[in-house]
Amino acid sequence: MSDFASRIERARMSLDDRALDALCLSVGSDLPYLTGYRAMPLERLTMLVLPAQGQGVLVVPALEAPRIDTSDGLYEVRPWAETEDPVAIVSDLLGPSTHVAVGDETWARFVLALQASDDRRAWVSAEPLMRELRTIKSASEVAALRAAARTVDGVVDQMAEVQFSGRTERDVAREFADRTLADGHEEVLFAIVASGENGASPHHEPTDRIIRHGDAVVVDFGGHQADYSSDTTRMFVVGESPYGFDDAYEVLRTAQAAATAHVRPGVTAASVDAVARDIITEAGYGDLFVHRVGHGIGMDTHEHPYLVEGNDQELSTGMTFSIEPGIYVPEEWGMRLEDIVTVTDTGVEPLNRSDRGIRYVS
Amino acid sequence: MSDFASRIERARMSLDDRALDALCLSVGSDLPYLTGYRAMPLERLTMLVLPAQGQGVLVVPALEAPRIDTSDGLYEVRPWAETEDPVAIVSDLLGPSTHVAVGDETWARFVLALQASDDRRAWVSAEPLMRELRTIKSASEVAALRAAARTVDGVVDQMAEVQFSGRTERDVAREFADRTLADGHEEVLFAIVASGENGASPHHEPTDRIIRHGDAVVVDFGGHQADYSSDTTRMFVVGESPYGFDDAYEVLRTAQAAATAHVRPGVTAASVDAVARDIITEAGYGDLFVHRVGHGIGMDTHEHPYLVEGNDQELSTGMTFSIEPGIYVPEEWGMRLEDIVTVTDTGVEPLNRSDRGIRYVS
Repeated sequence: MSDFASRIERARMSLDDRALDALCLSVGSDLPYLTGYRAMPLERLTMLVLPAQGQGVLVVPALEAPRIDTSDGLYEVRPWAETEDPVAIVSDLLGPSTHVAVGDETWARFVLALQASDDRRAWVSAEPLMRELRTIKSASEVAALRAAARTVDGVVDQMAEVQFSGRTERDVAREFADRTLADGHEEVLFAIVASGENGASPHHEPTDRIIRHGDAVVVDFGGHQADYSSDTTRMFVVGESPYGFDDAYEVLRTAQAAATAHVRPGVTAASVDAVARDIITEAGYGDLFVHRVGHGIGMDTHEHPYLVEGNDQELSTGMTFSIEPGIYVPEEWGMRLEDIVTVTDTGVEPLNRSDRGIRYVS
Repeated sequence: MSDFASRIERARMSLDDRALDALCLSVGSDLPYLTGYRAMPLERLTMLVLPAQGQGVLVVPALEAPRIDTSDGLYEVRPWAETEDPVAIVSDLLGPSTHVAVGDETWARFVLALQASDDRRAWVSAEPLMRELRTIKSASEVAALRAAARTVDGVVDQMAEVQFSGRTERDVAREFADRTLADGHEEVLFAIVASGENGASPHHEPTDRIIRHGDAVVVDFGGHQADYSSDTTRMFVVGESPYGFDDAYEVLRTAQAAATAHVRPGVTAASVDAVARDIITEAGYGDLFVHRVGHGIGMDTHEHPYLVEGNDQELSTGMTFSIEPGIYVPEEWGMRLEDIVTVTDTGVEPLNRSDRGIRYVS
């Protein structure tokens, strides 16, 4: 049985366990996880209707039907022409189903229209079901994540040899992206280059700020390689570190290493966050660590498990996630250090392996 | 009053007209259209809660709050910490509201959670309201679309001088994207390079197929420049055209020109589609024109009005949309020709102006 066939089979069993009649998946990674096909995130509806019993049907805009490889017979394809109503087609396919799970990222317009199409149906989020399927990675999925991590690690090493000063954040971000594409990614989804005071904004978007001597630069970038995600953060410093930076970086690095070492099957997601947070808090930077310590990663850059206070989920072999504490001093600088790791039977394997020290650049 | 302040004011009035109590906007272009701020399309909820009366509040993940410029006082910001529940915060802000419109692309998980948070509330799509605001472009919006069109027109001209044969689709697509970024776009959203038989798939994604002598190549690309979209399609032929191609291209070009000439205030969206379709059908290619003739464009690449059979909406001055008929011969070749145009008081202005003939390349 192919990976896809067995995943579809597991999804059906999970529908049964949850007393759900059908699963409806649209944009996002749930659909390619089950079928290999990714819907275009556009206004024309693509939706797989997978009943707990019977054949699945992929409802797809006619002009996108040629994109679909149907050779493995995993599902039927129902192309819809420009003058048809895809919501009505999905509703018909659902027939007597009364309890339906809908994919997480499905657009509101379609959710509301599907609800309105037949008010006897109850709609719930497919997120718990799909999470159950996707959170534990197979060996081949971990291998794909490892390969993606190797690519961005290589780019970090290359960029340590490059001049930053006198260039805009946008220009440097572009070079990270270009090199990542050249080295095997099919897509770069983000390249945060946050210099000087911009580093204090964790999700900063690169600007035309010119990087200069004495700047600390947060570089956090990633994308897709063979459909699996990369995501790593390393610190670059131009010339010399700003005041107070090096001391904080020692704390950050210790916290990141301790949180990583803490990972093994059976510990909770929240405890990994706590290990890093306690170290950072004891050193006096607790209020400056304004986000959770990590997020799961797979086909999506952010997915379960989330390593955050309050998440008592136990870690298991095959889970993959980031460990990325940060310290942010408003109007001065920021820092973050991020690896993707996977849980092994005996502990943890970091997938990112580039040097975790500060990279001093010109 | 700033553009944003007046747009928010119009949105409020429209809520009133529609007997809605509040508008909730998340990912997509509705939020930046009203406020200048674009939510990150991630699992942490960003949502503007705009009541028909009273101050709007932007609920945003704490780590993204530094991204927001609040200097104009258009709305309050409510950052939420990692351990808070943003859905509960939105629900509280909605207070006694019972009729709420939710943005089109809001993820299903949030729509379902908001519905579950208070079952006295009725949720409807914000799409009709936002469509009313966004469909007619201001002079400065048309200017932004014109500038974006000029950039991709220039890239088409540059690429007419470049060798295609012996290169993969992916490699040529990359060059289109790189040049578009170099010439002023902040983002390239798609670059379809569909060669030979791949041209028959209108939404083809570039592959490792090597382009060769005798291939017709559909190139359809675009992105964002100053937040407004570009989207153009031109035909490239390597050496000589495949059998039957040139005759069909004459028909396509005539159909595209006739549909463009037909545009003026008061004609229906559907009639523009019909003009192109009738010409293509009379020439015997009707079954091979498998999609509508066009889509609106603005901050989104695809938005209202859609130029499709059955859409009796009348065109008005300031609407902007694509005119892009295509002919697709399965397993042989495809062709499409696409301009963005704007409706003027007296007719039409094409924003794309690069030569519409076949570009013969080596």
